[in-house]
Amino acid sequence: MAALLRGCRNILLKWNKHVNPTLVSTRSMASKTPVGFIGLGNMGSPMAKNLLKNGYPIIATDVFPESCKELRDLGAQVVDSPAEVAEKADRIFTMLPSSPNVIEVYTGPSGILKKVKKGTLLIDSSTIDPAVSKEMALAAEKMGAVFMDAPVSGGVGAASLAKLTFMVGGAKEEYNAAQELLTCMGANVIYCGQVGTGQAAKICNNMLLAIGMIGTAETMNLGIRLGLDPKLLAKILNMSSGRCWSSDTYNPVPGVMEGVPSANNYQGGFGTTLMAKDLGLAQNTATNTKTPIPLGSLAHQIYRVMGSRGYANKDFSSVFQFLREEEGQ
Amino acid sequence: MAALLRGCRNILLKWNKHVNPTLVSTRSMASKTPVGFIGLGNMGSPMAKNLLKNGYPIIATDVFPESCKELRDLGAQVVDSPAEVAEKADRIFTMLPSSPNVIEVYTGPSGILKKVKKGTLLIDSSTIDPAVSKEMALAAEKMGAVFMDAPVSGGVGAASLAKLTFMVGGAKEEYNAAQELLTCMGANVIYCGQVGTGQAAKICNNMLLAIGMIGTAETMNLGIRLGLDPKLLAKILNMSSGRCWSSDTYNPVPGVMEGVPSANNYQGGFGTTLMAKDLGLAQNTATNTKTPIPLGSLAHQIYRVMGSRGYANKDFSSVFQFLREEEGQ
Amino acid sequence: MAALLRGCRNILLKWNKHVNPTLVSTRSMASKTPVGFIGLGNMGSPMAKNLLKNGYPIIATDVFPESCKELRDLGAQVVDSPAEVAEKADRIFTMLPSSPNVIEVYTGPSGILKKVKKGTLLIDSSTIDPAVSKEMALAAEKMGAVFMDAPVSGGVGAASLAKLTFMVGGAKEEYNAAQELLTCMGANVIYCGQVGTGQAAKICNNMLLAIGMIGTAETMNLGIRLGLDPKLLAKILNMSSGRCWSSDTYNPVPGVMEGVPSANNYQGGFGTTLMAKDLGLAQNTATNTKTPIPLGSLAHQIYRVMGSRGYANKDFSSVFQFLREEEGQ
Amino acid sequence: MAALLRGCRNILLKWNKHVNPTLVSTRSMASKTPVGFIGLGNMGSPMAKNLLKNGYPIIATDVFPESCKELRDLGAQVVDSPAEVAEKADRIFTMLPSSPNVIEVYTGPSGILKKVKKGTLLIDSSTIDPAVSKEMALAAEKMGAVFMDAPVSGGVGAASLAKLTFMVGGAKEEYNAAQELLTCMGANVIYCGQVGTGQAAKICNNMLLAIGMIGTAETMNLGIRLGLDPKLLAKILNMSSGRCWSSDTYNPVPGVMEGVPSANNYQGGFGTTLMAKDLGLAQNTATNTKTPIPLGSLAHQIYRVMGSRGYANKDFSSVFQFLREEEGQ
Repeated sequence: MAALLRGCRNILLKWNKHVNPTLVSTRSMASKTPVGFIGLGNMGSPMAKNLLKNGYPIIATDVFPESCKELRDLGAQVVDSPAEVAEKADRIFTMLPSSPNVIEVYTGPSGILKKVKKGTLLIDSSTIDPAVSKEMALAAEKMGAVFMDAPVSGGVGAASLAKLTFMVGGAKEEYNAAQELLTCMGANVIYCGQVGTGQAAKICNNMLLAIGMIGTAETMNLGIRLGLDPKLLAKILNMSSGRCWSSDTYNPVPGVMEGVPSANNYQGGFGTTLMAKDLGLAQNTATNTKTPIPLGSLAHQIYRVMGSRGYANKDFSSVFQFLREEEGQ
Repeated sequence: MAALLRGCRNILLKWNKHVNPTLVSTRSMASKTPVGFIGLGNMGSPMAKNLLKNGYPIIATDVFPESCKELRDLGAQVVDSPAEVAEKADRIFTMLPSSPNVIEVYTGPSGILKKVKKGTLLIDSSTIDPAVSKEMALAAEKMGAVFMDAPVSGGVGAASLAKLTFMVGGAKEEYNAAQELLTCMGANVIYCGQVGTGQAAKICNNMLLAIGMIGTAETMNLGIRLGLDPKLLAKILNMSSGRCWSSDTYNPVPGVMEGVPSANNYQGGFGTTLMAKDLGLAQNTATNTKTPIPLGSLAHQIYRVMGSRGYANKDFSSVFQFLREEEGQ
Repeated sequence: MAALLRGCRNILLKWNKHVNPTLVSTRSMASKTPVGFIGLGNMGSPMAKNLLKNGYPIIATDVFPESCKELRDLGAQVVDSPAEVAEKADRIFTMLPSSPNVIEVYTGPSGILKKVKKGTLLIDSSTIDPAVSKEMALAAEKMGAVFMDAPVSGGVGAASLAKLTFMVGGAKEEYNAAQELLTCMGANVIYCGQVGTGQAAKICNNMLLAIGMIGTAETMNLGIRLGLDPKLLAKILNMSSGRCWSSDTYNPVPGVMEGVPSANNYQGGFGTTLMAKDLGLAQNTATNTKTPIPLGSLAHQIYRVMGSRGYANKDFSSVFQFLREEEGQ
Repeated sequence: MAALLRGCRNILLKWNKHVNPTLVSTRSMASKTPVGFIGLGNMGSPMAKNLLKNGYPIIATDVFPESCKELRDLGAQVVDSPAEVAEKADRIFTMLPSSPNVIEVYTGPSGILKKVKKGTLLIDSSTIDPAVSKEMALAAEKMGAVFMDAPVSGGVGAASLAKLTFMVGGAKEEYNAAQELLTCMGANVIYCGQVGTGQAAKICNNMLLAIGMIGTAETMNLGIRLGLDPKLLAKILNMSSGRCWSSDTYNPVPGVMEGVPSANNYQGGFGTTLMAKDLGLAQNTATNTKTPIPLGSLAHQIYRVMGSRGYANKDFSSVFQFLREEEGQ
């Protein structure tokens, strides 16, 4: 039904697809329907800018009004609440820190669903519990709207360069309408299945990433203790069955690779606090589905302890430093 | 000194290198000095055969005389003890199940070192504790011999096809003499550093491999429970930061890849018992060097429990099955 | 305010306290105000019976009407919904399997809060997430009612014998009114603090219990492998710093103690599924409060795996059997 | 045979046992045969003093001659090597830091076994790998001597007050001769079985102790985060199934108990480095016997990391502090 209601728009979209993209990007904003954007933090702000660049008028809001200043200067219309965004746009993105924020923005007293129009497409790019995504989808469905989860991988840099990867969960028949906008902000858009599977894919990837990173850190540390040169060890692992992204692309040992956080005192990158948050989501979904995740659980605990021991703001590859003997011992 | 003593041989070897290899292989065995081979099990037997194929006369022994039958039929001389091998060969390979066997074969009452000639090159391809490798090297040095550790990666198939990878630790100046023989049995020969570093590299790789495999298994299981298609999830991981050898080359979930043990009820491959053994070595070296290996330790424990719960003879990727809910629950 | 509204009742209660208990128990039911009881499962049923025995008229309900039969025969009034219970009683117990059931019974369409009278005391003896207890307390407060959490320790046997331990969280000034009823069903009633702390105490105890049990199981197994007699080892631990409840009161090794599940093929007792549930609650609260619980997490994972490997219905001390080498290996 | 050779001495011992102990202690030293003592560190020194106090002449040695000064002043004869001790005493104690020291003192070039007399009783109170104890016992047996392992529990204070607990492994028929001396230094002497079982009992106890301590620390931390008063939580655990030595006798939370290291900034007590060492022994024996110890392994890793993060010299109950959120976060 929602699909039906958006039928007219979808026809236009399909038509747009065959238009010369260069022409499209030089058209006036007025020719595209406005897109709502709620949550203009480190990630949301560059994402919204990329929609603007692609010619979509933006209706934006954030709990911190100052976050909206830059976007307003670029021509976005800033409003006071998610409900107001819902009155003015029929495709709305949300990019929020955690599940409670998403629940508030969708179902709170001045939330999207208080004013959402039938047929509106709601795309949540926050990383949250897939169970919450499913709840939001049900709540949206009751109002005649459609909810999709589309969490991202890639950090602030990828967001600025429109190089994010989106993992999308939701009704297949709405996917095209979402994809059109997502490709303005990302390099890869992957359809994962029903609502919540975008979150599931994101959570799964980051859990395996954390396991691989800690595993690489302890393996490199052990090898160095046993007399191996770190660069040589990394080379051996990378041509053997120990190979993983953390060993060959993001090695945690200072001096092994350039251009990664370990080469820069673990500044920048993906902070241990964010990794601990994603592992907390993995743990919650595993607990709720009664799925054993022994290494994922332990990885979660290790990042939790690191957060308490002064590593909260360092890149998650700093686990190498955490496990290492202190200087002078 | 040992290098000096073997000087003459090395000169011959270098000369041989420039000879047309086809010619070499058709020459009579008498033109090459014999090579000793101790330990003719599943791995040692095809390795020794590859030396024979390359024209090296073989002097062999094994605690189980019947293991030597095939090699004798192919022309190897079978003798009664490691000491006797040491009397007749000045380059000797050992390929044995574990540290105690290596200690016995080298330093036991009829061990190699009882009769070893000065300048003999001893190459141990067993996977053992690097501390034992160092002990053997010291004991060999006292007798004027040279010890190198050269454990392999790759299983029985790779051994038969001379496609093993050797990780070699020992004196750099002896490496050429070893390499000449190792290239008859393997596709890759990597010099890792001082004695024991070959073992270290092997142990490190297998520890990270075990972590990656269990991590992949629990991640895939979690994703499936959350509604993701296993093939799609594997594809997403493999294009993202969760990528590892276990996800992209040896996926543990039946139906995701062909030609891997998970596609064949976890038959063949690398058994959980062998993985538990290697993780035990990793744990021992970590304990002895006071290195924390939280995920490596837990991986070790998981393979230990699997060994007790009926998975001893299955490929180590069967951890996916171990973690999974039983049918009917 | 709620306290004020119940003032009259509290005065009566205090008066009752000085009455000869023998007399009280022989008085007609009519002299006591009725108590509501929702959830008549294995635990709820004997608990409600003990209230009946102590002269409290019971208004009962359960989603499975047949669960109420026995209590009806003993004189309880059985009604159709939690809302109906709320109409007829101003002190109500709930004893339910998990958080979602509690949410439904309190806030669902025919839930308690739909009909609750101002000043009603609501006591939830379910073991659930303390965050849900706090939510229920807030929801109850909005209706002018008072919510307390009072989870139990002790199993079905203790419930029948009125030997349960209650850990109570909630407003101190309501504690007396609760205690009067709780002492009819339990031997120990402990006031823990604000709402949710009863659950917190229960969860904390069971997490440490699980850690102690698995620790005892692996320690006993290791000792036996090292040649120690299990009874002697238990005796040594119990007089030393390794002592814990699982070693001295509930030893998991068959033959060490009598009258415990390990003496009876791990029948009866506290099932691994229930332990996994409580550890899931511990994990959730730890994740939500960003508290590292490395051993608690691993204990959770171990009981999860056991649930998948055929130990779901055995007592949680069967972890000894799970860790042990299979017969014949 | 060894027993036979010591027959005469044993008869005297049995006779001594019936003598009024007050009389014995006032007798001149000359009436007792001298006892050797090797290793006069923090533990060995007070132990040897207690033997002196009980009238046993002491023949002592230590790799650090200055360690012997105090004992010499008290009348002990200090010699240069373990071999020399063996020439002069037929009952010899060793109290050394680790397995390699024990191997050196027994089998080294100037070790005990170089000069040991037939029938000598060798008692090793070091905490080491039981496999090494067995090796030493075999080596001693070849020389006609008898080896027993008798590791202690209790720290320097207990050593000074002769309140140690000894766990003794070795031939039952030699136990009496050992017991006579051990009771001079300890309050409890427990016969555990064959050689190595004393070590096994010690290692098992300390592994379960470490598990209980970390478990208690994380449970208390979680409870506090959930709003429970730490003293109240400790009280609840101690009357429930979560009870263990670490919760009721050595609580790791500052303010809960007096007279324990947690009340004194984790000074004194049993250092994390020592605990990590014992857990390393537990891990080694478990690996060698293929016994899964999931929680013991993780406890080992946690104490390893603590050793690298500045907790090396704090009491092992400081794991509470390690797991806790830093101030100001």
